[in-house]
Amino acid sequence: MKKLNVGMIGGGFMGKAHALAYAGMPMFFWPAPAIPQRHTVVDVTEELAKDAAERLGFENYSSDWRKVVEDPEIDIIDIVTPNDSHAEIAIAAAKAGKHIISEKPLARTAAEAKTMLDAVKEAGVKHMVAFNYRRTPAVALAKKYIEEGRIGKILNFRGTYLQDWSADPNSPLSWRFQKERAGSGALGDIGTHVIDYARYLVGDISEVMAIAKTWIGERPIQSGGVDKLGTVKAEADVPKGKVDVDDEFSTLIKFDNGAVGSIEATRNAWGRNNFLTFEIHGEKGSLYFNYERRDELQVCFSDDPSDSRGFRTVYTGPAHPYGEGLWPIPALGIGYGETKIIETYDFLKSIVEDTSVSPDFEDGYQIAVISDAILESAEKGIWINLTENLVKA
Amino acid sequence: MKKLNVGMIGGGFMGKAHALAYAGMPMFFWPAPAIPQRHTVVDVTEELAKDAAERLGFENYSSDWRKVVEDPEIDIIDIVTPNDSHAEIAIAAAKAGKHIISEKPLARTAAEAKTMLDAVKEAGVKHMVAFNYRRTPAVALAKKYIEEGRIGKILNFRGTYLQDWSADPNSPLSWRFQKERAGSGALGDIGTHVIDYARYLVGDISEVMAIAKTWIGERPIQSGGVDKLGTVKAEADVPKGKVDVDDEFSTLIKFDNGAVGSIEATRNAWGRNNFLTFEIHGEKGSLYFNYERRDELQVCFSDDPSDSRGFRTVYTGPAHPYGEGLWPIPALGIGYGETKIIETYDFLKSIVEDTSVSPDFEDGYQIAVISDAILESAEKGIWINLTENLVKA
Amino acid sequence: MKKLNVGMIGGGFMGKAHALAYAGMPMFFWPAPAIPQRHTVVDVTEELAKDAAERLGFENYSSDWRKVVEDPEIDIIDIVTPNDSHAEIAIAAAKAGKHIISEKPLARTAAEAKTMLDAVKEAGVKHMVAFNYRRTPAVALAKKYIEEGRIGKILNFRGTYLQDWSADPNSPLSWRFQKERAGSGALGDIGTHVIDYARYLVGDISEVMAIAKTWIGERPIQSGGVDKLGTVKAEADVPKGKVDVDDEFSTLIKFDNGAVGSIEATRNAWGRNNFLTFEIHGEKGSLYFNYERRDELQVCFSDDPSDSRGFRTVYTGPAHPYGEGLWPIPALGIGYGETKIIETYDFLKSIVEDTSVSPDFEDGYQIAVISDAILESAEKGIWINLTENLVKA
Amino acid sequence: MKKLNVGMIGGGFMGKAHALAYAGMPMFFWPAPAIPQRHTVVDVTEELAKDAAERLGFENYSSDWRKVVEDPEIDIIDIVTPNDSHAEIAIAAAKAGKHIISEKPLARTAAEAKTMLDAVKEAGVKHMVAFNYRRTPAVALAKKYIEEGRIGKILNFRGTYLQDWSADPNSPLSWRFQKERAGSGALGDIGTHVIDYARYLVGDISEVMAIAKTWIGERPIQSGGVDKLGTVKAEADVPKGKVDVDDEFSTLIKFDNGAVGSIEATRNAWGRNNFLTFEIHGEKGSLYFNYERRDELQVCFSDDPSDSRGFRTVYTGPAHPYGEGLWPIPALGIGYGETKIIETYDFLKSIVEDTSVSPDFEDGYQIAVISDAILESAEKGIWINLTENLVKA
Repeated sequence: MKKLNVGMIGGGFMGKAHALAYAGMPMFFWPAPAIPQRHTVVDVTEELAKDAAERLGFENYSSDWRKVVEDPEIDIIDIVTPNDSHAEIAIAAAKAGKHIISEKPLARTAAEAKTMLDAVKEAGVKHMVAFNYRRTPAVALAKKYIEEGRIGKILNFRGTYLQDWSADPNSPLSWRFQKERAGSGALGDIGTHVIDYARYLVGDISEVMAIAKTWIGERPIQSGGVDKLGTVKAEADVPKGKVDVDDEFSTLIKFDNGAVGSIEATRNAWGRNNFLTFEIHGEKGSLYFNYERRDELQVCFSDDPSDSRGFRTVYTGPAHPYGEGLWPIPALGIGYGETKIIETYDFLKSIVEDTSVSPDFEDGYQIAVISDAILESAEKGIWINLTENLVKA
Repeated sequence: MKKLNVGMIGGGFMGKAHALAYAGMPMFFWPAPAIPQRHTVVDVTEELAKDAAERLGFENYSSDWRKVVEDPEIDIIDIVTPNDSHAEIAIAAAKAGKHIISEKPLARTAAEAKTMLDAVKEAGVKHMVAFNYRRTPAVALAKKYIEEGRIGKILNFRGTYLQDWSADPNSPLSWRFQKERAGSGALGDIGTHVIDYARYLVGDISEVMAIAKTWIGERPIQSGGVDKLGTVKAEADVPKGKVDVDDEFSTLIKFDNGAVGSIEATRNAWGRNNFLTFEIHGEKGSLYFNYERRDELQVCFSDDPSDSRGFRTVYTGPAHPYGEGLWPIPALGIGYGETKIIETYDFLKSIVEDTSVSPDFEDGYQIAVISDAILESAEKGIWINLTENLVKA
Repeated sequence: MKKLNVGMIGGGFMGKAHALAYAGMPMFFWPAPAIPQRHTVVDVTEELAKDAAERLGFENYSSDWRKVVEDPEIDIIDIVTPNDSHAEIAIAAAKAGKHIISEKPLARTAAEAKTMLDAVKEAGVKHMVAFNYRRTPAVALAKKYIEEGRIGKILNFRGTYLQDWSADPNSPLSWRFQKERAGSGALGDIGTHVIDYARYLVGDISEVMAIAKTWIGERPIQSGGVDKLGTVKAEADVPKGKVDVDDEFSTLIKFDNGAVGSIEATRNAWGRNNFLTFEIHGEKGSLYFNYERRDELQVCFSDDPSDSRGFRTVYTGPAHPYGEGLWPIPALGIGYGETKIIETYDFLKSIVEDTSVSPDFEDGYQIAVISDAILESAEKGIWINLTENLVKA
Repeated sequence: MKKLNVGMIGGGFMGKAHALAYAGMPMFFWPAPAIPQRHTVVDVTEELAKDAAERLGFENYSSDWRKVVEDPEIDIIDIVTPNDSHAEIAIAAAKAGKHIISEKPLARTAAEAKTMLDAVKEAGVKHMVAFNYRRTPAVALAKKYIEEGRIGKILNFRGTYLQDWSADPNSPLSWRFQKERAGSGALGDIGTHVIDYARYLVGDISEVMAIAKTWIGERPIQSGGVDKLGTVKAEADVPKGKVDVDDEFSTLIKFDNGAVGSIEATRNAWGRNNFLTFEIHGEKGSLYFNYERRDELQVCFSDDPSDSRGFRTVYTGPAHPYGEGLWPIPALGIGYGETKIIETYDFLKSIVEDTSVSPDFEDGYQIAVISDAILESAEKGIWINLTENLVKA
């Protein structure tokens, strides 16, 4: 069986998720398209990299990502670093002829994303951007219903992504609050997942109109580099630094196909943890999904008899997308890991079968264009038309 | 005990709800501020009016609302007719010195609402507009938490009102789909309840930005006048008439106090029945309410310990607003009737105690201004500033 | 239209619910089978009775129930008193030829219930016992599905009734904790509603096996007679009295038709308010109902396709039992009052049409037999066979 | 870092789950107590074993479990075979001095389980039985609340485990329906998980009273050995074989500490997938958990103010048990894999630190005693006292 060597750049929380997927994917999807080998992991120091290799089961480690990118043994470069390094690594990896999977958002701006897209196209390598949440089986089931026409023409999409880990003003100033490193705040970090849902399930977005707010203007400067997502509170006397990204945004959107909708995201919504939801109304039915209860999809079909019509709570399992490979009964438990395992499966399949995979850098770029437009709309208070901004592949 | 004679104009579904409230209010709130007497009911023909009187327990009936409005025995005029007659009746009632409660929306346009507001102010009578949903005890509890500062400064309000009774293109062209009679569609019919929530719970709205859509452009012309809300489907060969109001709208909103948010409403969302919801994020907590499960309010307090923080599902009962008068334990069951009973209680109290009551015609007028602005924004694609449009009392 | 004069014995919380139903029933179900007239209300003193009459809209009042029972103008005697007086009043009313509706449980023991059943049978009057919760439209819908065979042969019924108003040891010793007055505790007070569901939805119970527990052995003696259901806490130095009824019981049950199940009830379950639930598994589907969210019935049909099978959340409205008479769309709001309005409608219809109505005193008696058996089983630790105990009509 | 070599006997669905845990555990809990090495996997043929090794990432494979058990390189024997082989393998492994983790139920009967318990005690090896569901973080949080006294003395425990994969009479006759291989039906397969919850959260069970039913007496004989849990339906003409185990059981239980409760389980409940739930009432609060929504624990504290008391929905994350090692925010997603990762962590820690771990073979044995008693009670219709049957460690 074919093996593909992975060089993973980054050993934090997201590296853990990807490492688990490399180890677990063939256990779930067998025969696997290829066996991913955890070849080399990179972290910022030799010591951290060595620790990551032991922890995550990589054979080698390095603190020099450039060397790894150029290592002829490596087939795939996996980018799980903060946003400001995605472009540089991806472009170098493309030039070295590596297939690339990058964490989201693809880049800090559409312009930056475009350089990455151009690079992978020129190199002719496979590329994917890790909007893993669309690989939740319940979301893939929603896609299936839509494609089968079971809810009819879509009228409305409403998506939210609400968390609360940054609601406390004492949660530290991680890179996620700094424009220079992150590009944007809630928008790039979590809002892009909702934009990905909107494009995946409904289609291209043609116009956006937005509000963006920064609720907490400064936060305690954190000492170490580790990204604790709000769990470590600052001491009282820690100096503070400026937050220059959005804590929250809210949009109206219009789709090319005539549907309308809204998207909002914030990390300051007390009581919401990973409240990534969508509600879709079609001419023949409706869908509702909440990732916090991710084993479930709710669907209502208009052609059910009036005495027994209502949202059905469908728990995904073997009868649903990806179900054959996952667990033998519904609700045994889809976790974060499974979304990454499916993502890895689809990416490796695209490499072995020489097909494209979605979402790829083209999608990542278009999402970046939409993200830029959201910030521009929020600043100017006007609708931004995307059709003219987007460069279709 | 004081008695107040009611003349009710209209004997349809809403008349039923009000009649139940007149009969039931003293049973719940005792001693009642006054006993409402079902004196006279008006319907479009003598026959219908007679039937309404028997059915709803009124002592007299009439097909001439003008006579009733001028009847010296009548203390209160209750307007439960379609939107296009609210103004004429209310103005006449005000001139006759009657206290007035009108169904919502107050009028078809802000200009029309203004004439009503001016009339009641000049007459010095008590006035109320029947946004009954804010009298759900769980909503009053949300208000109490906010006023006590328990969720801190409000950052965001998201409100929806989703129904599905008009999702079927064969549901008939009732007056609710005709601009001439209704003023607007989902906006006036149900969206105004959400606007009322936003103003009640958060404060004055300063700017709106909206999309409005008419999904079903024509509907079968209905034979009778009764408003069946989608349950009666048309035959295949019934001629169709034009729908000239919104089936759906979606807005971004900004509040005077800096909070932002969104409001959307539609009667075309399969599977949603009376999905009147709000989610509010504050600096110290969050609230969530869904009228479909109206005995419950969900609240999250940020100062709960981190190992046991989460939304609390509070069932309203004797320990909550209006609870002493209602049922002896939570979840015995708040229905539509109870919201009307509380509304009647508060209105009669305002008459007897000579105080103002909210929402009054001033509120109804301001909501009409916001509604007009939503339609204007949807048409022009620009933010509409309300501060300058609103005439504060 | 025919009028029926009601003499209501008792003016407490339950009297309020019944008075509302008398006033409201014709508003909902029209043409009504008859118009119930609130003729006379009885309370323990003249003063209380006068107050009840004003509050509840009765024309007359009395402190002497015997006189009212014998008043030739009265057609219906409505018993809304504590359990220890049901039998005496009902037997007198039957002898006087009155139709009777009695609050539940019918009596304190099966023997006592039998005397009532014998009396109404001998008198040939109409009789009903007010297990109103089965008249929740969602429960009637469950019955409809079962009768239509849509969930197949029933295998299992699990019912609960959980409240928390007596969980606090300082909630006072109302009559509901005294065997002499109440007969039993959680069993008679709330458990009988679940037994009624079991018999209504599944069929006759043949055997029971039970545990019963008294968790709080004594409670503060309350000063007044009003039944505050836990909301009034005792002062520290109030003398205590003995609780001699069950705080909780839990049973296994077997039905005549081969189904099995369990029933449990307690008023000591913190966080549960009116958690009256059932879950039913059949060969072709399942049902779930929770009265706390009473507008909804959940139903799963086995013959749905495997990719879209799951519990449907059906909100009851015009397309469901009693829906034509109630509110025009689902989830507008079924409250406690509506269950009583439907009950009143069915009772008056049975009088006017001279038909039987269910649940009647026969049902009330059989539930009393089951209740006695539950206590006997709990005491002896053995299965109690009911078939031999029950005297079928 | 210490490494421990695992010999895993069985390569089916459960083998997959364990293999994922061996690969993933150090990624989550670091420094890990030891690194588990996937040394050898055993399946029934060389071909299947080879396939399992490739799929699950084992270095070696074998079709002879006895050889593997005696391989001096192996430290841990992991038993993931059907129930009828647990005892033979475990006893051999104990004799060979291996630490042992066995899938549940430990054995087909208490007598068989006792031979296993005796063997591991005599050998002095570490032993664990894989009731993984108690390692769901939300369940561990329930345990923490109870130990901290936050819900007070426990009064009642109600547990259910409902699935629907065997509700269809055409789902094949896997070994799970054969007493000879499985020992019992729903009881051993899933009911034991609830018994484990009851003992873990409340304490020792002293008496049981049960009903057991076999709803579907025969099923199509399946052709291959793979356990498809109902997803493969039989052709019409497949010969049928006898089911001689319970499809469903329901019990009343009494605990040593005075609490009471009930347990029920079935794989024939349409619409329930992995509905493993408990509700616990204590003197000071309540808990509710449903594994289908396993990121959440619901808890109600009686000492919350009456205006804001209700079940809190707590999503587990870094602030909760095992949270430091898992995902950085709540609701990112706990799946089945995470429960196995935690299980592996605790087992390896017990080996390295030479401590006991729970649930061990002693627990597995006691659960088998309770299971035997449930079947005996169901057969005889009497309460079975366990105190005398149980041999405490």
